[in-house]
Amino acid sequence: MSTATYLLPFLGVIGLIYTAYRVFWVKFQDDGNKRMRKIAENIFEGAMAFLKAEYKILAIFVASVAILLSVMNAREESSSPLIGISFILGAICSGAAGSIGMYVATKANVRTTQASRIGLPEGLRVAFMGGSAMGMGVVGLGVLGLSILFIIYGKHFGTDAAGMEKVITVITGFSFGASSVALFARVGGGIYTKAADVGADLVGKVEQGIPEDHPLNPATIADNVGDNVGDVAGMGADLFESYVGSIIGTMVLGAGFMAAFGEVEGISPLAAVTLPLFLAGFGILTSILGTFFVRVKSGGDPKSGLNKGEFTAAGVMLIASYFIIRGMLPAEWVVDGKNYTSMGVFGATLIGLFSGLAIGLITEHFTGFGTKPVKSIVDQSVTGAATNIIAGLGVGMLSTLFPILIIAAAIIFAHHFAGLYGIAIAAVGMLSNTGIQLAVDAYGPIADNAGGIAEMAGLPPEVRERTDTLDSVGNTTAAIGKGFAIGSAALTALALFAAYMKTANIDTIDISQPIVMAGLFIGGMLPYVFSALTMQAVGRAANSMIEEVRRQFREIPALKEALVVWNSNEDKPVDEWSEVDRKIYDKGLTKAEYRKCVDISTKASLKEMVIPGVLAILAPILVGFIGGPNMLGGLLAGVTVSGVLLAIFQSNAGGAWDNAKKMIESGAEVNGVKLVKGSEAHKAAVVGDTVGDPFKDTSGPSLNILLKLISVTALVIAALL
Amino acid sequence: MSTATYLLPFLGVIGLIYTAYRVFWVKFQDDGNKRMRKIAENIFEGAMAFLKAEYKILAIFVASVAILLSVMNAREESSSPLIGISFILGAICSGAAGSIGMYVATKANVRTTQASRIGLPEGLRVAFMGGSAMGMGVVGLGVLGLSILFIIYGKHFGTDAAGMEKVITVITGFSFGASSVALFARVGGGIYTKAADVGADLVGKVEQGIPEDHPLNPATIADNVGDNVGDVAGMGADLFESYVGSIIGTMVLGAGFMAAFGEVEGISPLAAVTLPLFLAGFGILTSILGTFFVRVKSGGDPKSGLNKGEFTAAGVMLIASYFIIRGMLPAEWVVDGKNYTSMGVFGATLIGLFSGLAIGLITEHFTGFGTKPVKSIVDQSVTGAATNIIAGLGVGMLSTLFPILIIAAAIIFAHHFAGLYGIAIAAVGMLSNTGIQLAVDAYGPIADNAGGIAEMAGLPPEVRERTDTLDSVGNTTAAIGKGFAIGSAALTALALFAAYMKTANIDTIDISQPIVMAGLFIGGMLPYVFSALTMQAVGRAANSMIEEVRRQFREIPALKEALVVWNSNEDKPVDEWSEVDRKIYDKGLTKAEYRKCVDISTKASLKEMVIPGVLAILAPILVGFIGGPNMLGGLLAGVTVSGVLLAIFQSNAGGAWDNAKKMIESGAEVNGVKLVKGSEAHKAAVVGDTVGDPFKDTSGPSLNILLKLISVTALVIAALL
Repeated sequence: MSTATYLLPFLGVIGLIYTAYRVFWVKFQDDGNKRMRKIAENIFEGAMAFLKAEYKILAIFVASVAILLSVMNAREESSSPLIGISFILGAICSGAAGSIGMYVATKANVRTTQASRIGLPEGLRVAFMGGSAMGMGVVGLGVLGLSILFIIYGKHFGTDAAGMEKVITVITGFSFGASSVALFARVGGGIYTKAADVGADLVGKVEQGIPEDHPLNPATIADNVGDNVGDVAGMGADLFESYVGSIIGTMVLGAGFMAAFGEVEGISPLAAVTLPLFLAGFGILTSILGTFFVRVKSGGDPKSGLNKGEFTAAGVMLIASYFIIRGMLPAEWVVDGKNYTSMGVFGATLIGLFSGLAIGLITEHFTGFGTKPVKSIVDQSVTGAATNIIAGLGVGMLSTLFPILIIAAAIIFAHHFAGLYGIAIAAVGMLSNTGIQLAVDAYGPIADNAGGIAEMAGLPPEVRERTDTLDSVGNTTAAIGKGFAIGSAALTALALFAAYMKTANIDTIDISQPIVMAGLFIGGMLPYVFSALTMQAVGRAANSMIEEVRRQFREIPALKEALVVWNSNEDKPVDEWSEVDRKIYDKGLTKAEYRKCVDISTKASLKEMVIPGVLAILAPILVGFIGGPNMLGGLLAGVTVSGVLLAIFQSNAGGAWDNAKKMIESGAEVNGVKLVKGSEAHKAAVVGDTVGDPFKDTSGPSLNILLKLISVTALVIAALL
Repeated sequence: MSTATYLLPFLGVIGLIYTAYRVFWVKFQDDGNKRMRKIAENIFEGAMAFLKAEYKILAIFVASVAILLSVMNAREESSSPLIGISFILGAICSGAAGSIGMYVATKANVRTTQASRIGLPEGLRVAFMGGSAMGMGVVGLGVLGLSILFIIYGKHFGTDAAGMEKVITVITGFSFGASSVALFARVGGGIYTKAADVGADLVGKVEQGIPEDHPLNPATIADNVGDNVGDVAGMGADLFESYVGSIIGTMVLGAGFMAAFGEVEGISPLAAVTLPLFLAGFGILTSILGTFFVRVKSGGDPKSGLNKGEFTAAGVMLIASYFIIRGMLPAEWVVDGKNYTSMGVFGATLIGLFSGLAIGLITEHFTGFGTKPVKSIVDQSVTGAATNIIAGLGVGMLSTLFPILIIAAAIIFAHHFAGLYGIAIAAVGMLSNTGIQLAVDAYGPIADNAGGIAEMAGLPPEVRERTDTLDSVGNTTAAIGKGFAIGSAALTALALFAAYMKTANIDTIDISQPIVMAGLFIGGMLPYVFSALTMQAVGRAANSMIEEVRRQFREIPALKEALVVWNSNEDKPVDEWSEVDRKIYDKGLTKAEYRKCVDISTKASLKEMVIPGVLAILAPILVGFIGGPNMLGGLLAGVTVSGVLLAIFQSNAGGAWDNAKKMIESGAEVNGVKLVKGSEAHKAAVVGDTVGDPFKDTSGPSLNILLKLISVTALVIAALL
């Protein structure tokens, strides 16, 4: 093992030091007045209660799987019971990534509100710094965990070909642990946030006429907790898993170059194995560098501030990648009669980076505010909910065209440049800037929460306006992030697929074999069933929430009295803190039992996450052991293709519906008629948005994890088949 | 060529004689009073005008493709320009199958109305006999066309191995022709019927408050024409294409047994090639036999009458298959080291038959009136359109689980019993009773039309009640038919896939090759884009219709006056002929310009069918010639898996929404509260039903054809790659 390898953990530690610094920095900011602090405390407690309850369940699951893995592998020569340890570590790191994100987000939200009282640049700064703490935490934990395991296992098993095979097999457990926790976190978080959202919306807003974030609404705290649980912790675990999965997939394939590299002077035989770790490690540095470029002048565009940070990081990373790849790999080498070059590997990295960007831009086109496809949904909203839904489904389906062509081209060209290793390294290329990318992603829900707190605390409307501006910028940048998430999921799954074949010792998977075709069908079906289960789970959880909120309005005397006050003021301004609110406050009538709603969302989501999660892990195990490695190979291909398609369809349809509603709310015109909030077209668009919510926040993003989890499960059991 | 082969065309002719007899029989029935005749004439003319316009466009397309095919194949040794002739014949037969169906359906509809004035059994008889004329026409044309081409080409090229290869290659053109026309017919018909439906519904019913089938509604004739165009002609062409495709796929694979059979005494070397033709030919006889068992006593259940016919036909066919297979094939033989037995082939046929039935029963469970999944949609309708939509999407997605497991099991076991030939023959087994199956399918839209005529002609309500009963029975049996359609599409596509590999001379298609994986992604995406295009086409066509209907109500003085009369009678009974109607009639105010609506639907649907149709044909050609045969193989696998899934999802979601609406209309209870027509829950269910319409009548069923058309296109160009 080269000396440079020992540097890797330090790169991870740098990420974590940055995180720690930012957490302290955020906590040091002003957290506003007493009322704001009280609200923030409620959200913080709700979020922590959910995490605690979730991790309690996951601990049992993780322990059982770890024991099972160790026992199963104890008898295998090629493997080791240490895989159980890796699994536990992966699960813990994933959980830690989510926890750090949640912690800092629930601290940053109220401070963003307070900072927004001063101005937009101040609000942006706090929200983004909160996000960046999470971003660097995720990548820091990833690089630290993987590199330490690699070094320790390398010492234990040796770094020759046979030793390295064991090292990598055992390390896959880390990815498996990360993916399992990520799936549960994504599904549980997605169910939580949507159940709370629907409860707050449907009973509070529609039935009782109270704004969503109003303190009279019993589900309002749960709703704000949900944003953190789903969008912050879920996404953190998701990207942690992509990040780790793509690195490990590349390591497995890189091991195939060891013999060839051993013959080249000055080149470590492990260069191709450790390359993804080095790229990821340097990505931490460039991401941190990027954060210093994120700033906006008073009156400036927050979007350009974020872009500046992202592009700086990406540009520097591009140059760094060139030197890292040229420095580590031989100029050219031959394996199994195929020529490889370091420039080819760099080319594959570029392909990954640019195809991620291209998919992001297309996502933006199909889902962005004011774009042609979204406008077409607005147009169809005029004739009612049905045409709005049909248009949205159409836009979602059509939006698969270009991303799939890009993915197909990326596969072909990355392979052309550097074989299967090229496909894997392309995924690493896409994800090398995860640190800052995730900072931007997490910034959105923080700004969203900040807005909710502004409203609940009765701050002046301009504060809410500023947080809304911050939030809407987050939506656009999040679209680009989604492109990277989907593109990298596809490539990572393929890298894991190739790794699986290598580990299972199969050279070809022939689709004309009936067993493979059957696997392909079953794999293709899994994302559908998984989506159905998660959507139905959202429906059930939302129903419990609806019942609880209705009960509170019915049974709590103070709430009932407050409703009378609220409803007796016909001229109350909607979406704005008013005299009526003050009257309700002064009388001490805000007695909604937030905690009960938080409990219901927590329990329902944890209960509902079990079946889809278990399905995802059991399906490949059953098919693998009953149908054999070829059928499992077919299943992997099927789940990858079908999962990517369904994920793009659902995410983009959901995003498009969301912005179609927003366009109508800001007065879009159809046939020269200006639409308004409360019109029939708006009602139709609200239906579309509600349908889109579980699409884009629950089932869609969960599919990304599903396909990687199934692939990594296959990889873990590959040696046993 | 054995003498028995010469019998095959006669079996086809028997089917056509039955058809001719039934057409005359239907025409001989009483066609009611003058007003009924006038309405029927309008529908008939609209339907024929559509067919004429459609075939004019298709003629240009067919001629160009035929020339292209002949020129391309003229240079190829293994092929022949005769493929162009086959293509034209396939297209003509498919067109003829649709035309016969349309002709008899538009004659049978009014006669069913008239017969229903007497009683339910009489109505059932006329509607079913009308359907049976179409059913036997389709299978008769299929067997006649294929067997004559087989005999003539056999004489021309010779029946040795080399000759047979050419014969079969050239015959694939027939299937290609049938599939092309079927796709255009399905897509065009699907767009037509939904555009007219939405126009009649949205402007007539919702905006002006006039029942859908009321003579004041300008789109009412177009709506009734649409039922024939979409459900009769579209379905006829669809099943014709499945039928022919499965037979040809089996013939290609059967040619692989020629050498082995040549060594067995008393067995024709061509036995495996002609077996599917014999099974299909005998299927005509058993189907005709079955029709004589379809009858119902006064007060009896029409469903049991139809079932009796279907089960008789299926039972007899089962026994006949056993003897045909045992008689034609050797008891056992060996090819490429694999053992085959005639009992194995029979086993594969059984697997096809039973898995089709099983998928049908599951379809019924997920979409039937009063079933648990449909009830869950009813429950979710209470909280509005959004939850209704989410529930329906969930049901549709979940409904893919068991059909896919059944298809996967059918693939594995049919292959276990008789190799790839087993998979193909399983598809033939599923379709051997197409004659009577299609009779039952076509019976539904005839009964539906009969109801429309009863209403337009102002017949007493009990007539409409009877036709409604007939119609609802048709829906259940149609669900079983859909199971067969989807199952057979999957197996036929796989048979064509295997045939493609054989013709393109490729032994394996390895998914771990990037080019194959890229093909798999692109193939998986095509059904999404195709669905999006057809759904958007429905939206655009519906908009033109909406504008025209609105214009008529605005500009035609008599219609405006009639509306005044209609609206001045507040107590008018809805959905029932009334005194108000008579007043409008007596004043001569029914001056709606039906023809213009028919024209608009015709033009819009023909314009909109072009792009999706061309996409389906161009995609495999482009990928094949640019990416090569392996990439095209990946595309075929992708389009099959993704297409089957999306088709099941869309068809079942649409069917479930439809029946959820019907359950609410007939007073389903949720939480002890009885729902009624016009309630919020009902409005939500109407939104779901409207979303489901293009799902189940346009994009869903078109996908079945899409995947077979793409497979057969690949098969046709296979030799050129």
